[in-house]
Amino acid sequence: MSDTPTRTELSALGEFGLIDRLAARVRLTQPSSVKGMGDDAAVIDPAGLYQVVTTDMLVEGVHFDLAYMPLKHLGYKAIVVNLSDVYAMNAEPRQVTVALALSNRFPVEAVDELYEGMLLACQQYGVDLVGGDTCSSRSGLVIAVTAIGAARSEELVYRNGAGEHDLLVVSGDLGGAYMGLQVLEREKSVFTETGAQPDLAGHDYILERQLKPEARKDIIVLLKQLGVKPTAMIDISDGLASEALHIARSSGLGVRVYDEKLPIDPHTFNTARDFHLDPTVCALSGGEDYELLFTIRQADFEAIKGNPNLTVVGHMTDANSGYRLVDKQGGEHELTAQGWDAFLKKG
Amino acid sequence: MSDTPTRTELSALGEFGLIDRLAARVRLTQPSSVKGMGDDAAVIDPAGLYQVVTTDMLVEGVHFDLAYMPLKHLGYKAIVVNLSDVYAMNAEPRQVTVALALSNRFPVEAVDELYEGMLLACQQYGVDLVGGDTCSSRSGLVIAVTAIGAARSEELVYRNGAGEHDLLVVSGDLGGAYMGLQVLEREKSVFTETGAQPDLAGHDYILERQLKPEARKDIIVLLKQLGVKPTAMIDISDGLASEALHIARSSGLGVRVYDEKLPIDPHTFNTARDFHLDPTVCALSGGEDYELLFTIRQADFEAIKGNPNLTVVGHMTDANSGYRLVDKQGGEHELTAQGWDAFLKKG
Repeated sequence: MSDTPTRTELSALGEFGLIDRLAARVRLTQPSSVKGMGDDAAVIDPAGLYQVVTTDMLVEGVHFDLAYMPLKHLGYKAIVVNLSDVYAMNAEPRQVTVALALSNRFPVEAVDELYEGMLLACQQYGVDLVGGDTCSSRSGLVIAVTAIGAARSEELVYRNGAGEHDLLVVSGDLGGAYMGLQVLEREKSVFTETGAQPDLAGHDYILERQLKPEARKDIIVLLKQLGVKPTAMIDISDGLASEALHIARSSGLGVRVYDEKLPIDPHTFNTARDFHLDPTVCALSGGEDYELLFTIRQADFEAIKGNPNLTVVGHMTDANSGYRLVDKQGGEHELTAQGWDAFLKKG
Repeated sequence: MSDTPTRTELSALGEFGLIDRLAARVRLTQPSSVKGMGDDAAVIDPAGLYQVVTTDMLVEGVHFDLAYMPLKHLGYKAIVVNLSDVYAMNAEPRQVTVALALSNRFPVEAVDELYEGMLLACQQYGVDLVGGDTCSSRSGLVIAVTAIGAARSEELVYRNGAGEHDLLVVSGDLGGAYMGLQVLEREKSVFTETGAQPDLAGHDYILERQLKPEARKDIIVLLKQLGVKPTAMIDISDGLASEALHIARSSGLGVRVYDEKLPIDPHTFNTARDFHLDPTVCALSGGEDYELLFTIRQADFEAIKGNPNLTVVGHMTDANSGYRLVDKQGGEHELTAQGWDAFLKKG
C-alpha cells in the first residue's frame, strides 16, 4: 500500500508517537485556530460568528475499498466530504478533527499517506487540522472526521427555507462518481478472476469524481458574487432524488424534477450506456457527487441564467402536489430516494 | 443484548429512519444550540466565548467488550469520556455529535439502548446532542464522539502552563476503573470456561468506575468556588504517570510523584492485592479513571488543603531533575508512561 519498501510497525511508534509525528507536520493557518493538537481539546476563537459542526464516518469495506482507493486519495476524500457539508450551510470551513481506528496491518508509512491526503485537502481549502484521536481496530480502517465552519447568522442556509415556486438548482454534473465506482468495481473483478491489469484508460473524469471529489467552495463564492442567497441548500452525497426530497420535506413543500434537465457529462452518459444503466437513474440516485443542490427565488433566475456551473432542474410546489419526476415524454413518476427499483423498470 | 424480545432489523428503518427516530428523542436545552440534527451541519452560537473541540473513538474489541459492557453504559461512557476532555480545558461542555458504525447483528432496539445511555449522559451534564452520522460496519461497533465546549479565553487551562515548584494535584482516587476491568475479565473467563454465572458481589465501586465513569464537572465548579485556577490540567485516561509526563513535557519541566501520596480506595487496594497486583502500579498506569490531574501555585495550597476530593501527589521541578517516582522508602525511580514492566519488577 506504500510506495516505499520501508515498513514501520505502528507499535514501534505507539499512539503518542503517531500523534507527535502528525502534529509535527501540521501548520495552523486560520486566525481562529487558537490551539491545535497536543492538549485535551482544540481551541477556536469564533470572533462573533456562528459555528457549524458536522461529522462523517468512513468505514473500510462499506464506504471504500483499498483495492482501488489509494490511501492518499482516501484521506483527501474523507476531509472533502465533510467540508462539502459545511459549504452546504453557506458557511466557511475552518477546522477539522480526525479520529482514526487502524489495525496493525497498516504500517506507519500507510498512515503517513493517509494524512498526506488529508493535509493536502486542508491546504487546498484553507482549513486547519486541530485535533484527533488514533486508536487500534481489530480489522478494518475507520475514519471519523468532524468539520467546523463559521458564518454570520444571516448568511446560514438551511434545508427548510425553500418557498413554493422556488427554482431547484444543481451545480456541476451528476452521476459521474457513481459511474467511476462501476468502472473500478468491474476492473477489480476482472483482476480477481483473470489477473489482468486494470484498464482504466479514458475514464479519467469519472474516476476523479469517485476517487478525488472536490467540495464546491467555488459555487458558494460565485453565489455571493452574483448576490444570490439560496433559500435552501444541501450537498449531494446520496443522489439528487434523495436530497431534493430532504429539501421538500424539510420545507413542507412538494417538488418537480425534470429528467431532461439533469446535467450529465457525456462521458458519464456513455459509460452508463456501456454498463446497460439508465444515465438518468445514475444522476438521480448514484450519489457521492458532492455537488450543491439549492433553491432560489424566481426573481434570482436572471442572475444565474446561462452560468455553465448551474442548472435549473425543477421547482418547488405546494405540498399536495407531491414529489414528482417528469420524464422526457411528459410522463410523471413518483420521485423516490431509493430510486433504483422504481426507475430501472422504466429504463 | 436487549431487555425486550422484540428485534427490529436496522435495514427495516434505514439510515434516515434511524436518524429520524433518534432526532425525535433529542431535546435541545443549551441556548447556544441554534440548530441540532436534521441539516448538513449543526449550528452553534458561541456568544463571544472561545470554543473547545475534542474527539474520541471507541472500538469494539479494543475499548469495550459487549460481553460485560451493557450498551446503555457504553453510550453513557462514550459521552462522558469526551466531556472529561472539555472539563480538563476548564471549559463547559455544551454540545456533542455522535458518529456510529453498526453491523447488522445489532437490532434497532440495541441502538435505542446505546442512545438511551448517551442521552442520559447528555441530560446529566446539560449537554445537547446536535448531530451525527450512522453507517454500516462489516463487523464491530465503532463510536466516535466529538464534544464542543465554551469558555472565556482567560479561563482556559492548557497542559503547558505548569510552573516550577507548582503542586501536582489529583481529584478522587485512582486505579478503580482498572481493577473493575480485572474483575470483569476474570468473571468472563470463568464463565467461558465453566459456564458459571459471574460473581460480581461486593465490587460495586470498582465496577461502576469501569462501567459508568463520571466526568469531574464538580471539581471544575469547586475550583472556581475556591478561587483556584490551575496552571495546567489534563484528565486521566491513560493513568496518572502518563498524564503527569504530558504536563511536565508540555511545560518543559520535571516532575516528582510520591508513591505514598497516591489516593487509592481501600476496595481498589484490596482487590489489587487479591489479584497479586501492586496497587501503586494500578493507580499510576491503570487508566480510565477520568479524574483530573492539575498543577497549582504553592500559594493556592491553603485553599485546597484538607478537601477530601483533592490530593497533592507531587510537585513540578526544573527540567534537569527529570521525571521521578519516589517510593515509600524514599527510593527514586524513573516515572514512565508504560509503567507496567518497570514497576512490576519492584512489586
